[in-house]
Amino acid sequence: MKHYYKLDEWNIIEEGFDADKNEISESIFSLGNGYMGQRANFEEEYSGASLQGNYIAGVYYPDKTRVGWWKNGYPEYFAKVLNSTNWIGINIKINDISLDLAKCTVNEFKRVLNMEEGYLQRSFKAALSNGNEIEVKSKRFISMTRGEIGAIKYSLKPLNFKGKLEITPYLDGDVMNSDSNYDEKFWDEISKEVNPYEAYMMLKTKKLDFHICTYMTYELTKNGEIIKPLVALEQSEKYVSNTVLVDCIENDEITIYKYVANTSSRYYETAELRQRTKELSNKAKNDGFDILLKEQAHSWKEKWKESDIVIEGDISAQQGIRFNIFQLNQTYTGEDHRLNIGPKGFTGEKYGGSTYWDTEAYCIPFYLSTSEEKVSRNLLLYRYKQLDKAIENAEKLGFTNGAALYPMVTMNGEECHNEWEITFEEIHRNGAIAYATYNYVNYTGDKSCLGEFSFEVLAAISRFWAQRATFSKSKNKYVILGVTGPNEYENNINNNWYTNKIAAWTLGYTLEVINYLSENEPERLSELKEKLNFKDDEIVIWKSIIENMYYPCDEELGIFLQQDGYMDKEQILVKELDKKHLPLNQNWSWDRILRSCFIKQADVLQGIYLFEQEYDTDTIRRNFEFYEPRTVHESSLSPCIHTILAGKIGNHDKAYEMYLRASRLDLDNYNNDTNDGCHSTSMAGTWMAIVHGFGGLRVMNNKLILNPFIPKHWCSCSFKIMFRGALLNIKFTASTLQIQNENNIAVNLSVYEKDYSLNGNDLLEINIL
Amino acid sequence: MKHYYKLDEWNIIEEGFDADKNEISESIFSLGNGYMGQRANFEEEYSGASLQGNYIAGVYYPDKTRVGWWKNGYPEYFAKVLNSTNWIGINIKINDISLDLAKCTVNEFKRVLNMEEGYLQRSFKAALSNGNEIEVKSKRFISMTRGEIGAIKYSLKPLNFKGKLEITPYLDGDVMNSDSNYDEKFWDEISKEVNPYEAYMMLKTKKLDFHICTYMTYELTKNGEIIKPLVALEQSEKYVSNTVLVDCIENDEITIYKYVANTSSRYYETAELRQRTKELSNKAKNDGFDILLKEQAHSWKEKWKESDIVIEGDISAQQGIRFNIFQLNQTYTGEDHRLNIGPKGFTGEKYGGSTYWDTEAYCIPFYLSTSEEKVSRNLLLYRYKQLDKAIENAEKLGFTNGAALYPMVTMNGEECHNEWEITFEEIHRNGAIAYATYNYVNYTGDKSCLGEFSFEVLAAISRFWAQRATFSKSKNKYVILGVTGPNEYENNINNNWYTNKIAAWTLGYTLEVINYLSENEPERLSELKEKLNFKDDEIVIWKSIIENMYYPCDEELGIFLQQDGYMDKEQILVKELDKKHLPLNQNWSWDRILRSCFIKQADVLQGIYLFEQEYDTDTIRRNFEFYEPRTVHESSLSPCIHTILAGKIGNHDKAYEMYLRASRLDLDNYNNDTNDGCHSTSMAGTWMAIVHGFGGLRVMNNKLILNPFIPKHWCSCSFKIMFRGALLNIKFTASTLQIQNENNIAVNLSVYEKDYSLNGNDLLEINIL
Repeated sequence: MKHYYKLDEWNIIEEGFDADKNEISESIFSLGNGYMGQRANFEEEYSGASLQGNYIAGVYYPDKTRVGWWKNGYPEYFAKVLNSTNWIGINIKINDISLDLAKCTVNEFKRVLNMEEGYLQRSFKAALSNGNEIEVKSKRFISMTRGEIGAIKYSLKPLNFKGKLEITPYLDGDVMNSDSNYDEKFWDEISKEVNPYEAYMMLKTKKLDFHICTYMTYELTKNGEIIKPLVALEQSEKYVSNTVLVDCIENDEITIYKYVANTSSRYYETAELRQRTKELSNKAKNDGFDILLKEQAHSWKEKWKESDIVIEGDISAQQGIRFNIFQLNQTYTGEDHRLNIGPKGFTGEKYGGSTYWDTEAYCIPFYLSTSEEKVSRNLLLYRYKQLDKAIENAEKLGFTNGAALYPMVTMNGEECHNEWEITFEEIHRNGAIAYATYNYVNYTGDKSCLGEFSFEVLAAISRFWAQRATFSKSKNKYVILGVTGPNEYENNINNNWYTNKIAAWTLGYTLEVINYLSENEPERLSELKEKLNFKDDEIVIWKSIIENMYYPCDEELGIFLQQDGYMDKEQILVKELDKKHLPLNQNWSWDRILRSCFIKQADVLQGIYLFEQEYDTDTIRRNFEFYEPRTVHESSLSPCIHTILAGKIGNHDKAYEMYLRASRLDLDNYNNDTNDGCHSTSMAGTWMAIVHGFGGLRVMNNKLILNPFIPKHWCSCSFKIMFRGALLNIKFTASTLQIQNENNIAVNLSVYEKDYSLNGNDLLEINIL
Repeated sequence: MKHYYKLDEWNIIEEGFDADKNEISESIFSLGNGYMGQRANFEEEYSGASLQGNYIAGVYYPDKTRVGWWKNGYPEYFAKVLNSTNWIGINIKINDISLDLAKCTVNEFKRVLNMEEGYLQRSFKAALSNGNEIEVKSKRFISMTRGEIGAIKYSLKPLNFKGKLEITPYLDGDVMNSDSNYDEKFWDEISKEVNPYEAYMMLKTKKLDFHICTYMTYELTKNGEIIKPLVALEQSEKYVSNTVLVDCIENDEITIYKYVANTSSRYYETAELRQRTKELSNKAKNDGFDILLKEQAHSWKEKWKESDIVIEGDISAQQGIRFNIFQLNQTYTGEDHRLNIGPKGFTGEKYGGSTYWDTEAYCIPFYLSTSEEKVSRNLLLYRYKQLDKAIENAEKLGFTNGAALYPMVTMNGEECHNEWEITFEEIHRNGAIAYATYNYVNYTGDKSCLGEFSFEVLAAISRFWAQRATFSKSKNKYVILGVTGPNEYENNINNNWYTNKIAAWTLGYTLEVINYLSENEPERLSELKEKLNFKDDEIVIWKSIIENMYYPCDEELGIFLQQDGYMDKEQILVKELDKKHLPLNQNWSWDRILRSCFIKQADVLQGIYLFEQEYDTDTIRRNFEFYEPRTVHESSLSPCIHTILAGKIGNHDKAYEMYLRASRLDLDNYNNDTNDGCHSTSMAGTWMAIVHGFGGLRVMNNKLILNPFIPKHWCSCSFKIMFRGALLNIKFTASTLQIQNENNIAVNLSVYEKDYSLNGNDLLEINIL
């Protein structure tokens, strides 16, 4: 569906109503503020295909595991993103006929996601079965400044009739997760009350006792004047509503402003939930829609100031990258270290759980560069807070002595995935979590986390690796058997180069951290060693593993081997494959994929990306040129790494080709699955492709490194990044590079391998040769 | 629960009622006749734990697949053994109180499975809550001579009261499979009728339209005289019954004889089902219980004549092996080539489907030696009839040109299992199916099957292997990647020695068969080649694969390697493992098992067993001594192979130790899972352990080879086998071997490496040195 949405720099625009694409649009036009979010469902009744979705960050449900065949080690329950009260609902009857876009003629339908100011707008004209024609305009947003608040302005204009409009704002908590394993509903009603012009409802999860309270107030105007018609009150199980009747004539404009507060027991005492929610909702109503919207626009302006990317000469790319940045900022704001970045954000509920290694491997670079330190630091803290569960998880798999295996998918630290080859064997995720600490410290220079909490995480992960690596007498080396690497198209393999590499690296980095602490925080180190019962013998073993780790490689080709048996496979290139076989995951049985040489996503190359400084350009090129032609990129996380490495080896056309594969994944529904929700985490990959790929951004030895090159098709590209207090606006064309420091803090740069010091508010201009 | 059942040569005896063991006993005391079977449920109501189970061979249901994560290639539905009408039911009320062993005091409870004559007997005294005491005796069997008939004699004797007995014989079709994936019921009612002293009910499966008809008649006696009390008729959805009231005084004996016929649309036209079933049931009633039971005893006497094993000096072993032979003969009689041997026979419904590679690898040897040729030939035909589905199955996985992959588990040819590492990768099953043809021809000398149907099966399987083996440039050999061998404790491995071996062997054997046909049935061969579009080019490739197949081995140790990476594993012996870890499959997570060196069941040794003649004794010993100490035998199919090979290399103590592990698996509930049903197929392994292991039976070049040795603990062992018309009774002690030919057909023998010709009815006696 290439370019179903209109191209625009700042907006996503749908013109004309296509019911078949409604669920896709519900994902695309989703709103969120890090605290809560929702799919772009209609306010009024809609009987067509729709996935009603409202989500509150961190409110989850331990759904009973369902598998075909049980394996020891699977958790019996796992935490799942919870669909919660539908609070946007405003049902409309026009002379007794329900307004339902599935049942009337719809004209001039337009849906706009205004990314610059952060709201969703919709307008249409509907002709009902009784001939009544009406114009509807709605605007709604979820406040970035008031986490619990959502506001809706919903206007009706009779075009060819007079009569009565029946307007029913409601709250509906009788909702279900579409991925509920046993078709169970997860909510119980605790209390509710309906009064004229307000209603509230408190629900509790059937397990874990999360309480959420939703409070709605509203106001009506007719032709701009406030009106207060009589109200009919309604309630039923997990449902509250008001209904008002408004008489109208042609061209009257009747508007309802609905203000809703959603709170949860995660932030308030249960006893005060109702009162606080009422206050929040009333405050919003008293301030009014326009003020709230102004706040919203201002808040987004600030976000864009720190994270915008401007592409001149390619409006499609411009829209694509802004959409991704917009969604990332809607998904996670970094204020609460108990939250993380779900694979679908607030745009759907597929995949259960909210945290994948995507966070550490793909998202942290985005937040490091575009948000204050605290945001990334909270992502590190999130894992620290779940360390106990990660140790429990490792114990289930037979590990001891405080070894930790973080789960593949999680919400609260508990594993949410149940495929042994992934759940138990895709252990490289542990490495990415360790690497995130390195990444954070390297980027920010802030080493305080090491003693505060990171060492505990690193030590636990290192203990895991030390137990997981075993000594092969036959190879006289340490090996890591039975893993799945980042390339999930090989399972239960031996000596995945990436996994072996990141395992040994983790051990080494943990030793570095021990040295750092021993020099700088010796007392804290002693305290930690005692807490962890950490013995120096462990260091001896770690060193031995580092020195004797086995890395499969092909001497003749001069490449690292993805795993021991890779070269026994039939070596075929993707381009030699009949197109009918692609995507492999829809056309081939799993065993066929597994024994083929085809790679789902960067694996050796992922490792080279992480440890680039260890390899010369020729080594990188040889590996890239071997693996890229064998890679089908059937993970949305693959092309960005390829863009970055192609940039590194100077293959700019390949870099751009790879960039295109991911940049509009959801907007153009490439994988035909956007109806389930957007690929939120891979959006960070697209950002990385531009900033690390085209921009060549790296940080080494406390210095910001840039090596920008511009794709042929673009006039200019500019991105904002924050680095150690400086806010840089980096703009490059084919011939010039401008770096504007927009803060007053100086920064050290290396650009095209030449060092610069850029003072506060200074501009650096470089001609590109 | 060692020896919970009393030791006895011919009977399984339970004394005293233990409700906690009832479901185990329901499995152990199961009855069957190849056509139908049932668990040993009580006739009267029982509110305690019970798995009600009645099964009709070949009547199955395509239950909707349920998996945690879908993989391309899984079938959407699969055939499942179907729990069908409960026809044994006779509810009893004594002065208005239900007789229910869960609700009264039970004394002198005794349950006996008479294996010599093939019936189940039960007796007990029950004291009810009203103080009434009653003695109950029941006897029932499923007729071996009249496939559709079951008969029950159920007697009641008031011990301390007079009053009324209410007797309710019924048929209940409102049953459910305990393994129903979505808690659905699988039967619809078609028709029913209740009359005094008879009732019938016809049901149809909700899919596939299998009709079954059940007809009951019955007769009552009081103190030996026929009585005909008035009858109350009852019916409800899928339920029909009669209720009779009998007045009684102390020591009266009231007996009901219930005769039931179960027919199915597999053998009769639907239109005539009712009438035929009625006739069968009435005929049984007219002949009467005693005549039917006499037929039964006679029929079993004939079975035992051909298949008995007598062990003197070890009553526990004697009981164990007779139980196994009894169950095997109850499960499969070989009359219908559409049937096969379910892993639980008629003793439970776990595992869905009825056919595993167990049939070819473990059961065929039993039936070859103890039944007429037709029985084994029908097992070959079963696979031939499912060849089209096996080709379809292979096509789903990307194979072409008529390549066949037989399913891992099946009823009707469709795959019934859904774990990719097994379903798609445990492809060695295809080899066992090819080997069964060789085994049949080698044992019987009957080559007519080759042209008739076996070549088609062999060619299709060979085509599979030729496509599945790929050429590794790096090894300059053909390799088979991504398989699971017989040892399911390694998954997705490369170059499983067993699989590579049986693949190449299949190709070679198919070429032999082509040569045989070309010499002996050239016209038929041409016809078949045309039918299969078989090109001689294929032969060229097959030969190349045979010559260049890669077999992993360790030169230094002089052993074959289970798979490429086996020697990279930490080499630990089972005896070095703390007992708390065993069984591994209950204590270790799956990944830990997979990367350990521990072996679930014979793998390399399984191959050596099949192709023993290719290896010298030293090679066999080296491999045995390497692998046996690493094998945990957590499959019931493992110890028998080890017994046989231990015997071969002269390690008689080890052979006996291995035999003990399997011989009373169900009787002593070793695996704590007999409640689900008995391990029917592994029972054939126990038979093999004695006959091939202790007896050293082989067939080579049309000659029967024997090398018996007796376990120290036994006085004598004798077994019956049929071989090419001869019926041999082979009895051996520590010092003598007697071979009695009980038929009048001569046979060539090689005993302790010396050749003999044994004439009809002759006895050969040999002193063992």
